[in-house]
Amino acid sequence: MEQIVKDFNAHMDKIRMYGQLMGVSGFDANTIAPKAGVAVRAKRDGFFSEKIFLMTTSDEMKGYLEGLATMVDKLDPITVARYKKAKKNFDKNTKIPSQLVKEFSELRAKAHVVWQDARKNDDFASFAPVLEQIVAKSKEVAGYRLEEGQSVYDMMLDDYEEGMNMEIYDKFFAQVREVVVPLLKAVVGSNKQIDANFMKAPVEKAMQEKISDFAAEKIGYDMERGYITESTHPFCSGTHKTDIRITTRYDERDFVSSFYSILHECGHAIYEQSTCDSIAETELSRGASMGIHESQSRFYENVIGRSRGFWNYITEELKGYLPKSFGAITPEQFYEAVNQAGPSLIRVEADELTYSLHIMIRYEIERMLFVDNLPVSELPRVWNEKYQEYLGITPPNNTLGVLQDIHWSMGAFGYFPTYALGTAYASQFVAEMKKDLDFDGLIVKGDFAKITAWMTDKIHRHGSMYAPAEILQQVCGGGLDASHYTTYLKDKFEALYEVKI
Amino acid sequence: MEQIVKDFNAHMDKIRMYGQLMGVSGFDANTIAPKAGVAVRAKRDGFFSEKIFLMTTSDEMKGYLEGLATMVDKLDPITVARYKKAKKNFDKNTKIPSQLVKEFSELRAKAHVVWQDARKNDDFASFAPVLEQIVAKSKEVAGYRLEEGQSVYDMMLDDYEEGMNMEIYDKFFAQVREVVVPLLKAVVGSNKQIDANFMKAPVEKAMQEKISDFAAEKIGYDMERGYITESTHPFCSGTHKTDIRITTRYDERDFVSSFYSILHECGHAIYEQSTCDSIAETELSRGASMGIHESQSRFYENVIGRSRGFWNYITEELKGYLPKSFGAITPEQFYEAVNQAGPSLIRVEADELTYSLHIMIRYEIERMLFVDNLPVSELPRVWNEKYQEYLGITPPNNTLGVLQDIHWSMGAFGYFPTYALGTAYASQFVAEMKKDLDFDGLIVKGDFAKITAWMTDKIHRHGSMYAPAEILQQVCGGGLDASHYTTYLKDKFEALYEVKI
Repeated sequence: MEQIVKDFNAHMDKIRMYGQLMGVSGFDANTIAPKAGVAVRAKRDGFFSEKIFLMTTSDEMKGYLEGLATMVDKLDPITVARYKKAKKNFDKNTKIPSQLVKEFSELRAKAHVVWQDARKNDDFASFAPVLEQIVAKSKEVAGYRLEEGQSVYDMMLDDYEEGMNMEIYDKFFAQVREVVVPLLKAVVGSNKQIDANFMKAPVEKAMQEKISDFAAEKIGYDMERGYITESTHPFCSGTHKTDIRITTRYDERDFVSSFYSILHECGHAIYEQSTCDSIAETELSRGASMGIHESQSRFYENVIGRSRGFWNYITEELKGYLPKSFGAITPEQFYEAVNQAGPSLIRVEADELTYSLHIMIRYEIERMLFVDNLPVSELPRVWNEKYQEYLGITPPNNTLGVLQDIHWSMGAFGYFPTYALGTAYASQFVAEMKKDLDFDGLIVKGDFAKITAWMTDKIHRHGSMYAPAEILQQVCGGGLDASHYTTYLKDKFEALYEVKI
Repeated sequence: MEQIVKDFNAHMDKIRMYGQLMGVSGFDANTIAPKAGVAVRAKRDGFFSEKIFLMTTSDEMKGYLEGLATMVDKLDPITVARYKKAKKNFDKNTKIPSQLVKEFSELRAKAHVVWQDARKNDDFASFAPVLEQIVAKSKEVAGYRLEEGQSVYDMMLDDYEEGMNMEIYDKFFAQVREVVVPLLKAVVGSNKQIDANFMKAPVEKAMQEKISDFAAEKIGYDMERGYITESTHPFCSGTHKTDIRITTRYDERDFVSSFYSILHECGHAIYEQSTCDSIAETELSRGASMGIHESQSRFYENVIGRSRGFWNYITEELKGYLPKSFGAITPEQFYEAVNQAGPSLIRVEADELTYSLHIMIRYEIERMLFVDNLPVSELPRVWNEKYQEYLGITPPNNTLGVLQDIHWSMGAFGYFPTYALGTAYASQFVAEMKKDLDFDGLIVKGDFAKITAWMTDKIHRHGSMYAPAEILQQVCGGGLDASHYTTYLKDKFEALYEVKI
């Protein structure tokens, strides 16, 4: 038994080292690598992705998994967790004929290019045929992995967030819809005037970099085990708890944008920097799921970063870095400006209030595609109707509507809903945290160490030892429940906009 | 035949992709990676280095090499060159018992740590025993690869620069010694006063970065296929002609230091950016040898960058970037200041005149270690005597003497002499170039394109298709000849210091 555990762990370590090296290369590609090298990098990435795929699906791996299956009850918990993840991945990747995997991969590469042009030219008709193929191929691929009676879309949802399905998401989005749709209507009808223009005053990049360093360190990002730089789209990328980096982008006329990118990415980074040492040398060190990861980024960005208490604390600190034009701004003005809410067309620019509605629309449409067999040609109509229904606006064209996101061209159905889980999970965690800590009092003092320590104890240190539902059960004593989230939004935006629903 | 060539090339391509990924990771490690991640990176580097080693020495590789050996005369020249390199590497790496390779590797790792402490504490005695072991183990390792009648040190010299041996180097350094030693004595005795203090006027880092970009592009580095950043020690690192990067370091009180680092590293980078497309996708694309590579870096740094013509051209261009304190400086003042020469203790800080003497001393000592079995304990005495003899100064301690370089702790004997080849090769090339181009006239006009095109045509585009001696033969119609180099030094420094030898 000892030998097979040792060999299995050694094999997993190898795979992990390939992943780390790919991670370093990916960070490089997204930050500094010359554009001219893109073809060479693409070839190299393809080679090593295949290499990793082969290592996770090899006969060697099969042998380990079969061997470990006979002794699961005798293994230590870390090996059990590594085994389960490897097994799930193995099953997922070996059930589909390799010819089909290749076809699907090529189709997606083609669809990506077609989508880029279609979005640029506001030409949904040119994208529709290949998207139709993507949907059909997704169903075909899924067919090989379906369990008795399982629906395709349920399986997709579980792929992106373990344990999730339509039953859970339907209930979740119903709770969201019930509160947020009327809340948005009330906000739109409010007479409250919020001035956010002062935030457009110029702040030089060099000064914004100082603000980034200050904010990151203040909320608990360990710069000794990290690095902050620029990229087109902000992201967090890590290889090991001793090397977790983040990126942001600087706009001299919008310092708040970078400030919130930093808080968001620091949430991801603090999570991975805080893994406990016993799993640091395993693939379990990378966080429990996309949803739980997003709960940490949204926690620092929104729950803390867009709270009144935070601005009561940080305003004085920030003024040292800001030009004189910000000198007279009060904490309350900042608080209101960073929380300005209203209908918008683009998901990635949505405010905290409406963000989940953008996600809900995509969830509902994906559900129609896979459960009701909605024809792809109907997507623009359905998209626009739902934006009108939930947000009260209709996109003037498909570039600002159904063509805006990359995900469907990649066949990534079931991915969107995880974006809605972040602040919802975070709100559940905060409800528990408040039983142990004076949450609001700590924030207004700028004392984030105890808050992060609580999160580390309950969530960070475990990496992906536990599934999302297990974490919720352990921390909150129940399952996903949007009521904390909707109450949080209701309390916040009713007060801010002086409305009542 | 076609199949084996295809399979061999595919295998070599794989090895190259591992090398590229290691290159990206190495660049990252030397520029931005957090220090805290060093242990994880070391483990990963060890894993992938071993992986590459195994791929270059595997039974699969052996099969290809044996197959190709039977058909060399029928292969295309590129495959022949790839085969020869792979074969040489295979033979080198398979003749030594793997247990010995491992022991030697561990010994070097240990020696490196001991050397660091010894240098820090000026404690040669603590380093001597492990260096003694390194020398003994180097001899033992070499013993497995020696050909009939070959001396250990000749083999080491050939390892670092193909085709080189003591006979060639002895003659080379004799030519150098004959001119440079008296030339330095004359310079020391000269009444010429050169003022270099004005160069210490502060130049802000942001401005130095602009100077770097300007200088790099001006001499022909393609920024679209490259990237310039900072590191502790300047270097050039590439994966493919579409992605060749350089680094420098900025000292606000010494802008010239970074300026020359840029010229030097650009020489390496232009070489690799100019490989012809037919070998760009092979390991032949990385330059012919250490010496030829250094000929390109020293060419741009010294032969061009420290010439009077260059300063006649560049002074006006640079003044736009420099603070007012440089406003009154003439091209002649710059020219004299950047060529100030004299005895010094530290190789990496040596001027153009004395650099080869530092190298010669190391060559002579290595020769004594391996040919005359000089005891390691004698090194400080021999070192100091040679510095007194050739440079006229004696190091006040071993930290500034025999302990200054890392190379011997790594067992890298035979490496040093290649450093002396750079400007010597370059001087030979320039002698030929002057038959085709108005070299001095182009420099004074700042027209470097034709010069680089000549170098590309004769040298760059061939990568490592040819051995150094073949390149010299093709370009100059002869072998290594230090006379162009010594004439160059003599003419330059006699005039500058108004002396005659």
